[in-house]
Amino acid sequence: MEKIEKKRLESLRKAMAEHGIDCCIINSTDPHQSEIPPAHWRGREWLTGFKSENGTNGVAVVTKDKAYVWTDNRFFIQARQQLDGTGFEMMPMDGPEAVDLVEYVAEMMPKDSIVAVDGITFSSTEAENMRNAFEEADLNFTTDFPMFDFIWPERPSQPLNPLFVHDEEIVGETVDSKIGRILKEVEKEGADAILMSALDDIAWATNLRSAGDVAYSPVFPAYLYLDKKGNRIIFIKGEKLSDEVREFLNKYKIEVREYDEVTGFAGAIAPDTCVLIDPELTAVVIAEAIPTAIEGGKGVAKLKSVKNETMLSHWRTAMEKDGAALVRFFKWIDDEFPKGKLTEMSIARKLRECRLADPDCVDESFAAIVGWNGHGAIVHYEPTDETDVPVTGQGLLLIDSGGQYCQGTTDITRTIALGGEPTKEQKHDFTLVLKGMIALARATFPKGTRGAQLDILARQFLWNEGKAYYHGTGHGVGFFINCHEGPAQIRMNDIPAVLEPGMVMSDEPGLYIEDKYGIRCENMLAVEHWKTNEFGDFYRWRNLTLFPFDKTLIEWEIMTAEEKQWLSAYHQEVFDRLSPLLSPAEAAWLSQKL
Amino acid sequence: MEKIEKKRLESLRKAMAEHGIDCCIINSTDPHQSEIPPAHWRGREWLTGFKSENGTNGVAVVTKDKAYVWTDNRFFIQARQQLDGTGFEMMPMDGPEAVDLVEYVAEMMPKDSIVAVDGITFSSTEAENMRNAFEEADLNFTTDFPMFDFIWPERPSQPLNPLFVHDEEIVGETVDSKIGRILKEVEKEGADAILMSALDDIAWATNLRSAGDVAYSPVFPAYLYLDKKGNRIIFIKGEKLSDEVREFLNKYKIEVREYDEVTGFAGAIAPDTCVLIDPELTAVVIAEAIPTAIEGGKGVAKLKSVKNETMLSHWRTAMEKDGAALVRFFKWIDDEFPKGKLTEMSIARKLRECRLADPDCVDESFAAIVGWNGHGAIVHYEPTDETDVPVTGQGLLLIDSGGQYCQGTTDITRTIALGGEPTKEQKHDFTLVLKGMIALARATFPKGTRGAQLDILARQFLWNEGKAYYHGTGHGVGFFINCHEGPAQIRMNDIPAVLEPGMVMSDEPGLYIEDKYGIRCENMLAVEHWKTNEFGDFYRWRNLTLFPFDKTLIEWEIMTAEEKQWLSAYHQEVFDRLSPLLSPAEAAWLSQKL
Repeated sequence: MEKIEKKRLESLRKAMAEHGIDCCIINSTDPHQSEIPPAHWRGREWLTGFKSENGTNGVAVVTKDKAYVWTDNRFFIQARQQLDGTGFEMMPMDGPEAVDLVEYVAEMMPKDSIVAVDGITFSSTEAENMRNAFEEADLNFTTDFPMFDFIWPERPSQPLNPLFVHDEEIVGETVDSKIGRILKEVEKEGADAILMSALDDIAWATNLRSAGDVAYSPVFPAYLYLDKKGNRIIFIKGEKLSDEVREFLNKYKIEVREYDEVTGFAGAIAPDTCVLIDPELTAVVIAEAIPTAIEGGKGVAKLKSVKNETMLSHWRTAMEKDGAALVRFFKWIDDEFPKGKLTEMSIARKLRECRLADPDCVDESFAAIVGWNGHGAIVHYEPTDETDVPVTGQGLLLIDSGGQYCQGTTDITRTIALGGEPTKEQKHDFTLVLKGMIALARATFPKGTRGAQLDILARQFLWNEGKAYYHGTGHGVGFFINCHEGPAQIRMNDIPAVLEPGMVMSDEPGLYIEDKYGIRCENMLAVEHWKTNEFGDFYRWRNLTLFPFDKTLIEWEIMTAEEKQWLSAYHQEVFDRLSPLLSPAEAAWLSQKL
Repeated sequence: MEKIEKKRLESLRKAMAEHGIDCCIINSTDPHQSEIPPAHWRGREWLTGFKSENGTNGVAVVTKDKAYVWTDNRFFIQARQQLDGTGFEMMPMDGPEAVDLVEYVAEMMPKDSIVAVDGITFSSTEAENMRNAFEEADLNFTTDFPMFDFIWPERPSQPLNPLFVHDEEIVGETVDSKIGRILKEVEKEGADAILMSALDDIAWATNLRSAGDVAYSPVFPAYLYLDKKGNRIIFIKGEKLSDEVREFLNKYKIEVREYDEVTGFAGAIAPDTCVLIDPELTAVVIAEAIPTAIEGGKGVAKLKSVKNETMLSHWRTAMEKDGAALVRFFKWIDDEFPKGKLTEMSIARKLRECRLADPDCVDESFAAIVGWNGHGAIVHYEPTDETDVPVTGQGLLLIDSGGQYCQGTTDITRTIALGGEPTKEQKHDFTLVLKGMIALARATFPKGTRGAQLDILARQFLWNEGKAYYHGTGHGVGFFINCHEGPAQIRMNDIPAVLEPGMVMSDEPGLYIEDKYGIRCENMLAVEHWKTNEFGDFYRWRNLTLFPFDKTLIEWEIMTAEEKQWLSAYHQEVFDRLSPLLSPAEAAWLSQKL
């Protein structure tokens, strides 16, 4: 392993010398700024050997004699291990020792050096930042160095999985209607056209999906151009399109062009056509090719985040399927645990198997977190062959997972006790977290409320005892697209997006006792209109997720009558809606859990 | 009245013609951007006849043939009445018909017109906004038109009330220490000196006060210049300084210069001295005179907002004095109400009298709100001769008031029922508001929490029933300075300032039923350190205000055991601390109220 990595770094340095480049900065994402890029765009990983979760956590810098990878505190230990012997050194992007990559490069490089990136992998915003800083330091900056074209012979191809139509009976809105609404946003922002780069926005707008291009999300690499004259063009690898999908595109008058033609197309747009782009999501080389561009375009993400009643009614089905799969899964744990053979990895494999048994579930919606005792206290823990432990003895098992059903994406966390009576401390902490989850789920609030205003409802019982968790309480969830979706969030820092009817959010407070256990309770909730009166419009939450909470972990003495009532009604609904999908043995298991 | 006003407008137009000015914009504030300016700076009020509460609510625009006053929705009705016959027309600065003053002037005036202001009354930020907009519209903008020097013969002089020293035994910090801390902030912002304009910051920094210069706050017009070489200069009217105060200033090596010399002084600062100014608080003519200025300076307000333990212990005394005055006052209401002669105005007069009976109380801390039934539902209601009503029959009386004691500023709201058993609705609504006030007062929270995160605690019980109030829940309170103080606030919109131990905030949820009644419960609270553990530092509130809540308005069935316990402990503390200051009859009255 060691030798291979060093050879790769040497080949990059050779290519840099041939192109007269003194420093090159290698991003970890793809031309669409995807959180999880396809294999074709994992060149930084290939080069350095460091496997980070997503693009923002592994930017590399290479000069003639130095090589670094920047990452965040979740990956410090892992990065140091994986980079050992590769010639790369780890740099912290956060924490007390944080080093700013751009400032560091600006200071390190001698005047007149040439700093290069592959401009298709950096957003316009990022590249502008770099250009300004480097020009101030008298460095030359170029976005024209596609390094992996020169040094990665066995590079995987662009993903070529076939597209399929996301049934409009399920989506509840035609592509025409969506494009009409997008163009209204475009007009509002004073533009004539829009060039969309974000894969989830494009999948949403076209009612198309694919499986396998990108892990955990049924999106596919493409660009979408729409203008007010009626031009609708998708840029995509032709191999991905079946006759059925071509017909569907044809029906909506969406012209197909090759994926790689987008930059050339952008450069040829008439200068009197003002094109809206999102500078944080559009590659700098594309953004700069457009003769007349204006920045904005956040409105599309907002449209996507508001789900219609058809979607929500299908989401009910997805939740029933998911709940039934989880009954099979957690019953299996109960059956297997006494045998003493379970490990975190075997549990994660079984979980995936239970979900994917349903043909409507095309993938998990993210890498499942299965954390036993101390591992549960590591917030972003994902078991691997290296970290796997047997799940035996007494303790708490935290499982955060979800599925990509064509009827809706799911995301649920349950924490269960195994191996006998939980401790008083475990029960008390679990109950504080559960009370917080219930308080947020029961909240009602006026129009205009932001997530940060509601956030304390989920934290208050912990704070009252001087305990706390420091991650967000809730994120938006996509409809058979990305499990993490903007713009609204429920967290301590303020996000200006307000909560609107149809938005679907997670509700997931937790508590993490280092080396001991982690607790998290998570349901998904949809905002719905509640009432309108002299004080304004009021909203409330509609619960979506269906699976019981572990009652052996509840300290009943600190639950209020309202909380107990909420829980008992919830468990009754879980049973009523899941039992028709279960075998008698499964239903019997579930009824015991209520 | 009518003729006088029109004559004033005509005299202004004559002065404009003499100076070749086509349009003039008249601010309502003073050179220090004070919320409530002294009489000398109330020229806009003299000119238009419209009496608004503060500077931001009454900017006038005069051209050869037009005259307008901009104001906000709280004053629409009043402004239209008061402007009738003056030649001025009202313009809305907010609401659905809002008109932007600067845009309006930019569009209305022909190219090359001269637009003038008195640059001592507009901040650097405001003037820059105007200059940019007007230059874009090809207008000429000048800040050199002190209109009231030409047209206001009977203009009141600058306030000349004597200063006095705010006892450093009470303040707990010397001027040297404060100046040292200010200069550290100056250094942090990369400057060598600071020119301070905000009157509350200057009063705080110098441990000086005055009574009568400005209504409801013991501040005084002055500027303060400090630099790292040790120069300390106060610009102030010499007549205001007694020998004792001159000696005090001398002790701290603070040089005295005439108030009007500040602009000349600013212009003569050496260009290698970088002077920190707050552009939102510094008059444009001063800001522009300084050869080398940088903008910032919010750090001083932050220092001022954090009170030390000496202040907090004296604040206890102020609260006891205020509570005792309120016992006398509310007992008087109980005694007088049956006679049927009370009015809102007579109640407000008695309230002032009860507070000012204490020689340590130099003024009320704002114009008392005394609202009977429907008037209580008008959030910023202040009784006047025109609006006064008899306080008779059954109903709710809302009283929001405070005092300027040299041991601390007070701000308290109580709502009481008079004239027999309150209705079920009144009791229910009152209890929802009280529960919210208690929930915020009992909150604990980690370091780094902002007010907007806690705000929902005070609103939650109302929101649960589809009821709401739309004003802020809490503001910072100054220590024998302004009753409204930044930077931290507790409100729905996010203010980035975090809550820190020593900050004193109000906690004042309410509910307003139009034409029926208003309810508000308000105590003052101080942030204090609670505990530090593996989860971080946690803070809690220390209650300051001492006066019982009207128990006849409580619906006990919806109060939790914890809330009842909080209330009963609170009432016990009120009695224990106030009764030593009361006559036997007053103590007996108070004991009945618990």
